Amino acid sequence: MDIKELTVGLLGGTGPEGRGLALRWAMAGAKVTIGSRSLDRARAAADELNQRIGSPLVGGEENQVVARESEFVLISIPYEPAAPTVEAHQDDFAGGAILIDATVPLTFEKGRVRYVELPEGSSSERLRAVLKPEIPLVAAFKTMPAHLLEEPHEPLDCDEFVAGDDRDAKARVIEAMGSIQGLRPLDAGALENARTLERMTVLAIGINRRNKIKTARYRVVGL
Amino acid sequence: MDIKELTVGLLGGTGPEGRGLALRWAMAGAKVTIGSRSLDRARAAADELNQRIGSPLVGGEENQVVARESEFVLISIPYEPAAPTVEAHQDDFAGGAILIDATVPLTFEKGRVRYVELPEGSSSERLRAVLKPEIPLVAAFKTMPAHLLEEPHEPLDCDEFVAGDDRDAKARVIEAMGSIQGLRPLDAGALENARTLERMTVLAIGINRRNKIKTARYRVVGL
Repeated sequence: MDIKELTVGLLGGTGPEGRGLALRWAMAGAKVTIGSRSLDRARAAADELNQRIGSPLVGGEENQVVARESEFVLISIPYEPAAPTVEAHQDDFAGGAILIDATVPLTFEKGRVRYVELPEGSSSERLRAVLKPEIPLVAAFKTMPAHLLEEPHEPLDCDEFVAGDDRDAKARVIEAMGSIQGLRPLDAGALENARTLERMTVLAIGINRRNKIKTARYRVVGL
Repeated sequence: MDIKELTVGLLGGTGPEGRGLALRWAMAGAKVTIGSRSLDRARAAADELNQRIGSPLVGGEENQVVARESEFVLISIPYEPAAPTVEAHQDDFAGGAILIDATVPLTFEKGRVRYVELPEGSSSERLRAVLKPEIPLVAAFKTMPAHLLEEPHEPLDCDEFVAGDDRDAKARVIEAMGSIQGLRPLDAGALENARTLERMTVLAIGINRRNKIKTARYRVVGL
């Protein structure tokens, strides 16, 4: 795979996690487009990122264009609008495109972060249930802290877990993620394991809060 | 806390995880007793461990004696007999004793490891439901690989997550765990988070299998 040929688009990518993922994929050499319902907001987010990296690596487009033109369509918005957003845009997906789901169902109650139990088992499984069967879905970037992703000079220095039931799509995502500096992608098994990864994010946020830090993340030792 | 004054007992501790935890607590300086329904099996397991460390640090007793004489009563048996074992012995617990739960509800289906969803949410919450309210329960050592624990010369070199709703008991366990070499205990929040920790064990076993290793474990980066 030539990372320079890879198109990565972010559906609703103007939030911190979306911007951070756009930044890291752009630094890896991929062609990255931030999507939004508003073209202005998408362009503004892209401009801001390009200024930060000092190079015009990131574009901004409406979500529909992002869905149509990206090989990896990444979604990292709050979990509630995620399913309707996927439903609204899946007909635009190009053949061979992969949906990469980084959503985490969480809520803050009285200042404490909690995992939201969904009937489908996880946010990834909820998206899988609305997504057309021919579009592969891969869960990844669930446990990456936005604060870390957004700082281009901070080494990631961690592992990221990749789960999915489509082996080819998962292998393709893992291979491409290997171009992101400082990140070791790990095969985390079946999509059902998104239940674990999403909870690990909530655990890391709790560790952040208790230790007054913002960038707790995971490394598997012994590998 | 003087670790040399701490009594640690393992209810049903003759399996690999129990033996490994006994070994690491003994190496930390605690007074450790392995329990079993059979005194002979308990003594045999203790003798075998003492030979391995080259010093008579570990004792063996019937579970009832272990329950009565230990400040930390550790349980690391399969999840199904765990609740009846706790129910059978909780009346023997000394005042101030803490139950430390290392159980993980998992099963192997067609060679693939799977997490067993329990109605209580996790194995720790199931034990909490049968345990008398005055006995504190702390979830810990869920993600530690038995293969690693059992090798006295292998550095642990990882973090271990400690969850519980009784803050004093959790703090006491975390403080004592600080005496185990190479292990960094981390406060993982409320007991409900055992749901995350138990699943992380299943994730690590999957990573082991896919990578043909036996000692995958976790480190939190950024802390």
